[in-house]
Amino acid sequence: MAAAGTRGAMVVGDEGDLKATFRQVYGRLKSELFEDAAFDYTDEARQWIDRMLDYNVPGGKLNRGISVIDSYKLLKEGTQLSNEEVFLGCALGWCIEWLQAYFLVLDDIMDNSHTRRGQLCWFRVPKVGLIAVNDGILLRNHIPQILKRHFKGKPYYVDLLDLFNEVEFQTASGQMLDLITTHEGEKDLSKYTMTVYNRIVQYKTAYYSFYLPVACALLLAGENLDNFVDVKNILVEMGTYFQVQDDYLDCFGDPEVIGKIGTDIEDFKCSWLVVQALERANESQIKFLLDNYGKSDPTCVAKVKSIYRDIDLQNVFSEYERTSYERLISAIEALPSKAVQDVLKSFLHKIYKRQK
Amino acid sequence: MAAAGTRGAMVVGDEGDLKATFRQVYGRLKSELFEDAAFDYTDEARQWIDRMLDYNVPGGKLNRGISVIDSYKLLKEGTQLSNEEVFLGCALGWCIEWLQAYFLVLDDIMDNSHTRRGQLCWFRVPKVGLIAVNDGILLRNHIPQILKRHFKGKPYYVDLLDLFNEVEFQTASGQMLDLITTHEGEKDLSKYTMTVYNRIVQYKTAYYSFYLPVACALLLAGENLDNFVDVKNILVEMGTYFQVQDDYLDCFGDPEVIGKIGTDIEDFKCSWLVVQALERANESQIKFLLDNYGKSDPTCVAKVKSIYRDIDLQNVFSEYERTSYERLISAIEALPSKAVQDVLKSFLHKIYKRQK
Repeated sequence: MAAAGTRGAMVVGDEGDLKATFRQVYGRLKSELFEDAAFDYTDEARQWIDRMLDYNVPGGKLNRGISVIDSYKLLKEGTQLSNEEVFLGCALGWCIEWLQAYFLVLDDIMDNSHTRRGQLCWFRVPKVGLIAVNDGILLRNHIPQILKRHFKGKPYYVDLLDLFNEVEFQTASGQMLDLITTHEGEKDLSKYTMTVYNRIVQYKTAYYSFYLPVACALLLAGENLDNFVDVKNILVEMGTYFQVQDDYLDCFGDPEVIGKIGTDIEDFKCSWLVVQALERANESQIKFLLDNYGKSDPTCVAKVKSIYRDIDLQNVFSEYERTSYERLISAIEALPSKAVQDVLKSFLHKIYKRQK
Repeated sequence: MAAAGTRGAMVVGDEGDLKATFRQVYGRLKSELFEDAAFDYTDEARQWIDRMLDYNVPGGKLNRGISVIDSYKLLKEGTQLSNEEVFLGCALGWCIEWLQAYFLVLDDIMDNSHTRRGQLCWFRVPKVGLIAVNDGILLRNHIPQILKRHFKGKPYYVDLLDLFNEVEFQTASGQMLDLITTHEGEKDLSKYTMTVYNRIVQYKTAYYSFYLPVACALLLAGENLDNFVDVKNILVEMGTYFQVQDDYLDCFGDPEVIGKIGTDIEDFKCSWLVVQALERANESQIKFLLDNYGKSDPTCVAKVKSIYRDIDLQNVFSEYERTSYERLISAIEALPSKAVQDVLKSFLHKIYKRQK
């Protein structure tokens, strides 16, 4: 057990304590935002932001955020991280959680969603409405504030700014592809191909969920990201595999375990399942899919699912999962650094055969 | 007349040509975005962005953007700017226009507006809808891309990133104040005070419209922004004066000249006029305002305007305009640098007694 940090009291211990440490950092970052010289908060403004942050930022699984500090530890191998290093890792982890909150608040508006993380979507909360658009922007704007306060002056400060800017752009571009494709797909399901699917997932999910945490840890460890293009490619592939699992669980997962009832079929989503089905279906099955995909009627949903079963997509998925795992392990083991291999294997083992 | 630039053909000439030069740079910046390595555009994505940019970015008066290059010229006094310097000034000017486009696209959604710059608001264009939220985000994401391509490696690159981040945050915070205040004001008009008004305007308008262009020019000229706090304060005051004019013209300007029919009264806006009216009205006039402000009924609007006239707000405004001008000129003439004085006077004379 290490001693308390310099400013926020913070205890750094074993794995079990890490999440608690991580959570503590959230409170510190939030209160620092209110002290930022760039804006003079009124009481109403402070209350609004305080509530908006608590509602939207810390309520997820925190996997992306915590994986920054996990990865940083592995990169430093045996060496114990100082309290300051742990704090900086947590701060970057929270920047990713803030980024995610920003995307989710705005995505929910665009998708007209109802619930998120077991509560009403923020824009559906009374008196919020479309103010949520600006709240999303504010969430995004907190990231450079956190970075400036804690990283300005570090040799990698500008790399952090560039990294967050690039990954945000890629994610928004993936979201654009998804929105455009879904509009096209509603008129013509055959637009949903594996190439289209992979491109959406790469940009919309993989960069920010998989590459960004590791890239943050590499910068903390003093590395130059230009030397880690292989690592980026592996993480993007892992992110794709993760999204395929998500699509699979949306249809075939246990709602009790995944914590929600999937609606990808009803929502006309460009899901891995429908793309695979379109590739494998015979003429009459394709006609069935065209007639029933994207309808909220439960009978239509059941018909789509029965085609998925007829084509044996559960087996197709198992096979995909096995070969993805093998390919990823081979690619990871071909990397020169043992520490980096450990980081990537740790990520892979967290998601391999996940049920939620 | 100078020769063509290194990459984009560009002719740099006198004042009259400046706007044409500025416009040419837009085309170059747009095509460079499509070459960015961070995203692999499909044809559909390129077409979407191309149309979205042309619809939203270049259609305004371009005052903010052009004032970067105007200010940069004045800061360099007699020295002729090289083609490269002109290009960089224009590029930063366009970053401000991109920032403005981002705010306007999202503000129009939040305000449920109908038209902007003489055309339908982007989100009202068929097939766009709430995809406009993501388009707004993409507009914002283009700024660091432009900065990275043209300024990475310059000694002031990180200052540019910090500057745009800070000003974006201040603008979004001003928008938050405005949104919260309007919600409160709808229940209780007495929330609209001069302190509240000044704070909203400072953050929502003044930083990005007045301080940002000059700050960009100062960075281009190699200055450290920490030495220009006085300049920032003057520009924020000038921005406030500009917004007061805007509010005045919304009610008393000639719709033919300002190019739109004002609806601040109908929209329950925290306008300088209603704040002044509340400060000066007698009991019965206040009751009249409470009963008629924020109603779309033309009779109510006319009643509010008649109270404005009874209180002689036109004179109050003239007096405000005169004293603001005098105070600003005194503050400007107290600054040590003649070149900086010229920049600020040029700004002030562009807006003093404007009719549109």
